[in-house]
Amino acid sequence: MRAEIIAVGTELLMGQIVNSNAQYLSQKFAEMGVNVYYQTVVGDNAERMAEAMRLASGRADLIVFTGGLGPTQDDITRDVLAKLLGLGMSIHQPSYDRIASFHVDRKVVMVESNTRQALMIDGADPLMNDTGMAVGSAITHSNTHYILLPGPPKEMKPMFENYAMPWILSRMPNTGALFSRMLKFSGIGESRLEHAINDLIAEQIDPSIAPYAKEGEVTLRLTTRANTLEEANKVLDITHQEIHNRVGEFLYAAEDVPLETIIVRLMREKGLTLSVAESCTGGYFSELITSIPGSSAMFHGGVICYSNEWKHRSLNIPMDMLEGEDAPGAVSEETAILLAKQIVIQTGSDLGVSITGIAGPSHSERKPVGLVYAAIANKNGDIQVHQLNIAGNRELIRIRSVKQVMYQLWKQLKAL
Amino acid sequence: MRAEIIAVGTELLMGQIVNSNAQYLSQKFAEMGVNVYYQTVVGDNAERMAEAMRLASGRADLIVFTGGLGPTQDDITRDVLAKLLGLGMSIHQPSYDRIASFHVDRKVVMVESNTRQALMIDGADPLMNDTGMAVGSAITHSNTHYILLPGPPKEMKPMFENYAMPWILSRMPNTGALFSRMLKFSGIGESRLEHAINDLIAEQIDPSIAPYAKEGEVTLRLTTRANTLEEANKVLDITHQEIHNRVGEFLYAAEDVPLETIIVRLMREKGLTLSVAESCTGGYFSELITSIPGSSAMFHGGVICYSNEWKHRSLNIPMDMLEGEDAPGAVSEETAILLAKQIVIQTGSDLGVSITGIAGPSHSERKPVGLVYAAIANKNGDIQVHQLNIAGNRELIRIRSVKQVMYQLWKQLKAL
Repeated sequence: MRAEIIAVGTELLMGQIVNSNAQYLSQKFAEMGVNVYYQTVVGDNAERMAEAMRLASGRADLIVFTGGLGPTQDDITRDVLAKLLGLGMSIHQPSYDRIASFHVDRKVVMVESNTRQALMIDGADPLMNDTGMAVGSAITHSNTHYILLPGPPKEMKPMFENYAMPWILSRMPNTGALFSRMLKFSGIGESRLEHAINDLIAEQIDPSIAPYAKEGEVTLRLTTRANTLEEANKVLDITHQEIHNRVGEFLYAAEDVPLETIIVRLMREKGLTLSVAESCTGGYFSELITSIPGSSAMFHGGVICYSNEWKHRSLNIPMDMLEGEDAPGAVSEETAILLAKQIVIQTGSDLGVSITGIAGPSHSERKPVGLVYAAIANKNGDIQVHQLNIAGNRELIRIRSVKQVMYQLWKQLKAL
Repeated sequence: MRAEIIAVGTELLMGQIVNSNAQYLSQKFAEMGVNVYYQTVVGDNAERMAEAMRLASGRADLIVFTGGLGPTQDDITRDVLAKLLGLGMSIHQPSYDRIASFHVDRKVVMVESNTRQALMIDGADPLMNDTGMAVGSAITHSNTHYILLPGPPKEMKPMFENYAMPWILSRMPNTGALFSRMLKFSGIGESRLEHAINDLIAEQIDPSIAPYAKEGEVTLRLTTRANTLEEANKVLDITHQEIHNRVGEFLYAAEDVPLETIIVRLMREKGLTLSVAESCTGGYFSELITSIPGSSAMFHGGVICYSNEWKHRSLNIPMDMLEGEDAPGAVSEETAILLAKQIVIQTGSDLGVSITGIAGPSHSERKPVGLVYAAIANKNGDIQVHQLNIAGNRELIRIRSVKQVMYQLWKQLKAL
């Protein structure tokens, strides 16, 4: 099957946003065994949109649109496609009702443009939107499949995975199914990981091995084609085991979850609780932990001890440890240790994490940007402190600090 | 001038990388007053590349390629374009010498494929590469301009800014430059905003008005073409004022910054300090505030009071307020108020924000997912509390809660 991805939106052509939807869909299609030959971006302009559609119809079996399903006058993807296919449009009643009840619930006036989001091309199958208002759709016309998805990734991704993907798969010739296993790594960079398994990547036939990196974690996706999960697992297990033998100490999961999910899960299994004292990361560690459903069973919370005064008042850090010519300062091993100890004592949690550092852009305490101290304390008074020297801007320093502390915490939890 | 951006690379079609080059070039073209009508991505395949080139030649005056200038057999952008234009290729001697001396310096053997990087289409102007090996080029043929740039952003961006941009500008008619102003809104949805200025959008000629939305904020970009900033401002001011008259209460900035930037700025200007007590948002509010450089001057920090026990121990919330058959519960107006009051008292800050709610996925305290209470207290004991009923999944409920509280906080700050 040959696919083409058409992203619609003048904001893409103006460079206001990056086309991450095309990357996401291309990854999914690679997994599904669908070949993507072109990605196209076109603005909110009926004529040029129609030209892109006509062209794609002539060279692809599957055309996926993102964007242009919103309520405004700019949002014309549906209208242009309907005209091109010579079809009408009607209100999709369940979606209309959903939009209407949303407005009633929130006591918001429903304006005429809101009803546009419930419009569907006649004969199309609806694709439900679990996270927003616009209804997606899928239709086959003259042997070409057309899929209409909304532009915001938060709406597009669940719609694609839950509704569009099964719709497409059921229309693909049966050549066995595709089975993937995600191996997730922390504490190791992409190049070091690739170096360790270079020969496996070079030889790869079955399973295929695709590395992806994002901030603080590296992923290897192993993919094979088989008739049953059992058959697939036999093939995947061999490569998985070989990779484990080489870099197992960094391999934190064999499923697509972030490190914080594994930390929450391990701590719940072991019946342990956690608290945190964050200075330079300002709540980022906490935010990631609490983004995981079920974290309330293991996470007390903690203190965002951003100012020195609040470090002192909330966690009894002596002012003469924080300030003064000969003081260690807020960004020091001593302060990191005491913050971690104090948060354990005050919350009564089993483990406590502290992070204090210079996130920049300007240095302070005559210490360089990127210098971060992190400590992990436990109830028995054991403490581990790490000096991190992190490269990057403010945002990167904050996320890398958090991810490195999580890696250390995970190592401790594994060893328990 | 109509431009088209063609990114070449199978890794883009496989979703291994995101097409950030297209975003970068589109931004630059918007600034230069060049209209980008299409972005295309095509793989390392001669036939499909030629098709994309032919198509672009028919509809654009300027075609910019990124990628496919490397040393490997996959790198064929130059070859395909030369063939399409019916031109030959020759070694660009200065680039060849540079590549050769690079290899000598590093005592690396120069293989035949390395010389490919010095190849240029006959008659093209070289674009120097200050950060890598591949030579870029620019050529005009049958009234169409073609620019060849390397794929890696670290090589592409300096080559574009230092060499390609002047080359293009010298071939453009002088129609003035493009000036934009970003108007940022909070507390109002995209459809309601557009409804309020529907007639302005419908009539738009100069400036153009482009709306776009992301979680918690809506942006209008006004754009006009002028010879000087002063001239541009005259045009932009009129529309800006008209929009302000209609929806000014939601307009928090006339520059592209998030709401937290304005909160940090306003509080610094007024010499006010802030603290926060976060339950369901788990540090998200704090994380956004501290992501802004300079927030340390106005933000004390606060407490992540995730568990009831820690709400009690850290902020003295009575346990019989949080738990028990007849207690208001952790998610209640009473608790939100007390959390905000207590964080002000304990930190000594001028203002304190609290957020407590049910982020889901499961409900608790027999209250529905999406029910959130947020309070803003000040030093004088004044307090404002808001009941929010937020739609969406855990992630959306958390971010929407934070953004709604920020909107309320910003309104208070404005009124001071």
